[in-house]
Amino acid sequence: MAAPVKRLAVLGSTGSIGRQTLDVVRALPGRFRIIALAAGENISLLAEQVSEFKPEFVHFSPTVKGGRARLEQMGCRVLPMEDMASHPDVDVVVVATSGGVGLGPTLAAAKAGKGIALANKEALVAAGEIITAEVKRSGARLLPVDSEHSAIWQCLAGEKQKARRIILTASGGPFREYLVKELAGVTVAQALRHPSWQMGRKVTIDSATLMNKGLEVIEASWLFNMSVDDIRVLLHPQSLIHSMVEFIDGSVKAQLSCPDMRLPIQYALTYPERSANPQLPVINWDNFSDLTFAQPDFNKFPCLRLAIKAGKEGGTYPAVLCAADEVAVGLFLAGRIGFLDIARIIGRVLEGHKKIAHPTIEEIAAADEWARGKALRLVGGEKP
Amino acid sequence: MAAPVKRLAVLGSTGSIGRQTLDVVRALPGRFRIIALAAGENISLLAEQVSEFKPEFVHFSPTVKGGRARLEQMGCRVLPMEDMASHPDVDVVVVATSGGVGLGPTLAAAKAGKGIALANKEALVAAGEIITAEVKRSGARLLPVDSEHSAIWQCLAGEKQKARRIILTASGGPFREYLVKELAGVTVAQALRHPSWQMGRKVTIDSATLMNKGLEVIEASWLFNMSVDDIRVLLHPQSLIHSMVEFIDGSVKAQLSCPDMRLPIQYALTYPERSANPQLPVINWDNFSDLTFAQPDFNKFPCLRLAIKAGKEGGTYPAVLCAADEVAVGLFLAGRIGFLDIARIIGRVLEGHKKIAHPTIEEIAAADEWARGKALRLVGGEKP
Repeated sequence: MAAPVKRLAVLGSTGSIGRQTLDVVRALPGRFRIIALAAGENISLLAEQVSEFKPEFVHFSPTVKGGRARLEQMGCRVLPMEDMASHPDVDVVVVATSGGVGLGPTLAAAKAGKGIALANKEALVAAGEIITAEVKRSGARLLPVDSEHSAIWQCLAGEKQKARRIILTASGGPFREYLVKELAGVTVAQALRHPSWQMGRKVTIDSATLMNKGLEVIEASWLFNMSVDDIRVLLHPQSLIHSMVEFIDGSVKAQLSCPDMRLPIQYALTYPERSANPQLPVINWDNFSDLTFAQPDFNKFPCLRLAIKAGKEGGTYPAVLCAADEVAVGLFLAGRIGFLDIARIIGRVLEGHKKIAHPTIEEIAAADEWARGKALRLVGGEKP
Repeated sequence: MAAPVKRLAVLGSTGSIGRQTLDVVRALPGRFRIIALAAGENISLLAEQVSEFKPEFVHFSPTVKGGRARLEQMGCRVLPMEDMASHPDVDVVVVATSGGVGLGPTLAAAKAGKGIALANKEALVAAGEIITAEVKRSGARLLPVDSEHSAIWQCLAGEKQKARRIILTASGGPFREYLVKELAGVTVAQALRHPSWQMGRKVTIDSATLMNKGLEVIEASWLFNMSVDDIRVLLHPQSLIHSMVEFIDGSVKAQLSCPDMRLPIQYALTYPERSANPQLPVINWDNFSDLTFAQPDFNKFPCLRLAIKAGKEGGTYPAVLCAADEVAVGLFLAGRIGFLDIARIIGRVLEGHKKIAHPTIEEIAAADEWARGKALRLVGGEKP
């Protein structure tokens, strides 16, 4: 019996995860139908995608001039991302937008009971309590797309009891072997050169600071209902083991695969089934090499420490963390601050924040806005 | 809700796996009741176990003088292992006997629809087709106890589709780094010194020749309905990853734990649940060390090659392999042949065998008897 066709809304379709999502859709013909595509400013690529996949709905950044007319000529209706995410014709919403813009659509999809293939970290980090409550209420399903969370999710398949511990692996990024003093002078180009993964710019910088891993710790705590204290980070430079789960009897499961985001994307889309896809790389057992591990250095990578602390504190702290990070990474990418300033700014913003426990979405939005302003003021007014 | 008490028959209760099974029973009070204990010649230990666990039924080797009266005085009924394995009061039969004697009770348990916690390799290797057919017919359940098969079983939990490949890990035994010419002179004491596992004598020698791994390949093919061609062996000296499973999408799951047989024994007994057991060692993530891998050397370990070949040929070949190995290992332990003669004898016996496809139990028994005689004749009459 053929699996039913899943109808997808792909938010962030022109980004790295979005493009790879469409690769998976191409590789498994007849399994998916693209109902909606949302992009930012890359309207040319969006137009190409529209002509290939013929979605009913599109979305793009309002800053793009003349985009609306061009896409309506192609037969699409322009729709806000929230409306795509909750549209009755959509089964699974792929949230592959970067940064804070993912929150609204994720929440809309959660309220509407959709499958949510979640590649956007910030939504769950900032508003994990609200989103997981909505998911529970509506019967929506969070389908992790990050390779680490996909690994944990795969390891938990078929397990009847809660895990004891999650071991989140981290490549360690391009600066794993650097000394702290060497980090001060690293360039944008160096930070964008990740050893194992091809990703978008924001997440690549977050990988270099290990902020990405810290956000993943918080995200994992919401996805798998685990305390941040029961999640630990282990460096694993080969990026073959994508994470591990320790169970109450001391048994541990690990998930391994070649570092290629199409696998976790595909698993989220085909779940609970797996599909053969000849385009996906497979581990070559003939020269399967050694796997190495190391403890993360919290002094060298203060962003990891800040994120774990924000995760433990909870409330509005994680939202502030995300917002300050987004601004700081933007400033680093623009050449306005140094690499080590990223953590300094985030630390200063967190220090200045007054936590609200169990915040509403409005309180999260306000904390986010406050954090962005504070981060920018730190650069503009005083030495960050 | 408390899990119901499982009623166990432990066959081979005085051996390594049997004793560790009773350790698990002690560690999880109220979960199990020992209905039957079967031992070989170690009647003193059996008597101790009887006075602790008060089983209804016992069995021991008929060569033990005065055993029957002693155990009947303790309130037990002496029963053949086959009758224990199929007794209505028994839920799970732990088959922890070594060598060919496990076949009869395993088959009886399979016919009677029991849970079969199978630590005995030879039964499934010699008669896999018959046992798995009986299991299917009766609704019995094979519960793997070998650490490798337990690992595979755990990795398969919750998976809806057949795996693509099994990667069976092997410590490589004490002679992993030896040259072939050095193997000729190894002593019994050297061969009994396994680097990672404490096991019985027969299985320790089988681990040194890698015959054990070959038998596990055949066993895995029956347990998980996989072709021998889709099972490969990878050396992993740390014995932390106990095996891996590759799925159709290229994703791989591995199971890790400290090398301690009580974990897979416990998993088989508590399945589908896991139980916290403070006596079980846990991986120390603070100093989690590197995992290394290597390809097995089939020239250095011809027993592995012979076993895989016998597994591919099928029919009566695996039974002949087991029987010849049991005799050859006995001769080596008795100091009558050298280490390399083990593989030579098994190879010669297999060469001389005429395969019967889809054999009956009687044909398997006849092949077994023929192989034992042939192996002994090779040593007695001609240079092995």
